[in-house]
Amino acid sequence: MTITLHMFPTLNAHKVTIALEEMELPYEIAFIDILNGGQDDPKFRALNPNGRVPVLTDGPVTVFESAAILQYLGRKSGRFYPADEAGRAEVDSWLFWQMAGLGPSSGNVNWFTRAARKDGRDPLETGLAIHRFTKETALLFDVLETRLAGREYLCGAYSIADMACWTWIDKYPDNGGGLASRPRLAAWHGAIVARPAVQRALRAGQDLIQR
Amino acid sequence: MTITLHMFPTLNAHKVTIALEEMELPYEIAFIDILNGGQDDPKFRALNPNGRVPVLTDGPVTVFESAAILQYLGRKSGRFYPADEAGRAEVDSWLFWQMAGLGPSSGNVNWFTRAARKDGRDPLETGLAIHRFTKETALLFDVLETRLAGREYLCGAYSIADMACWTWIDKYPDNGGGLASRPRLAAWHGAIVARPAVQRALRAGQDLIQR
Repeated sequence: MTITLHMFPTLNAHKVTIALEEMELPYEIAFIDILNGGQDDPKFRALNPNGRVPVLTDGPVTVFESAAILQYLGRKSGRFYPADEAGRAEVDSWLFWQMAGLGPSSGNVNWFTRAARKDGRDPLETGLAIHRFTKETALLFDVLETRLAGREYLCGAYSIADMACWTWIDKYPDNGGGLASRPRLAAWHGAIVARPAVQRALRAGQDLIQR
Repeated sequence: MTITLHMFPTLNAHKVTIALEEMELPYEIAFIDILNGGQDDPKFRALNPNGRVPVLTDGPVTVFESAAILQYLGRKSGRFYPADEAGRAEVDSWLFWQMAGLGPSSGNVNWFTRAARKDGRDPLETGLAIHRFTKETALLFDVLETRLAGREYLCGAYSIADMACWTWIDKYPDNGGGLASRPRLAAWHGAIVARPAVQRALRAGQDLIQR
């Protein structure tokens, strides 16, 4: 039984490669070429009716949505995911916070910023949305900065909640107004980027784009 | 040890009251008056640093984000949440899909639609966002309609994934273009609204607003 990660090197896929590398779980990559419609292939849609990467398959298990995959791998490996209910519920709270808050908010900053660059677009069409989502993302960064007071990681020990939050903050710190004014978040970010497993994880699948 | 649901009767809180009523778990409500800043009370912020309802406490467990609460209650009760890995991962996939996709997308339709009604607002300021999020929400409704082909509920048997999706679709069917053109989704919606536990759940906390 082999773990297969159906992916393109997106931020959400890198959450999963980080977890796989940190947990030392062997895996294969099935490259889904989202630049050329790979997500619309009926075989892929059968795995995820929502047509998004990443998806993970492992024998009888098929799981999509990056943080659902993180929970699955945490249960499978018994690592970076507390088994006691108080600890598990705490990590799950921050996992869903990333998926429902930080991810969509930051993603919307990206989308409307790109839309604003479209030739002939009136700035009025994007200004309100960029303002709203940038402000919201900054507040979410502030929540993390406050949370890290007296904690090295979001839930004490390094966990899948950190993995989920880290990828978006690493890639788009400016969506939340940057790390310079948030020393605890900057230290947390630096500690995670320095991990060898994270460095391996960020390279996963990158070579496949060149094909 | 008593389950306490810290809530205001929002859609996300009703996901949790539905689960509690369906699972027949006794609970108390701690009313958080978000119309008068209750979410900014330091005692509430200590439970959820993100300052949002609902939050559930149960002895040593504190859990926030509605779907993290649903998972916790599913584990606690052993109901509406498969214990086998394949079944659990399937339900979790749809739970996160609701939290990361349907919820934010539909919520953004609401926000920009309300913003559009602001006196003196140029329609150009909200049109692109309303178009984007309405289109996205309709696609997500279509994903559900397709998913329900040959299935009575999202993952076969009625589960916490249905509870999470149902509240948003019940309240804002028009955000996704309605149920009339989606017969399977309409039947699914009707089957859930008819459940006595759901009816009890929707009344939970409503009386507290009158105080």
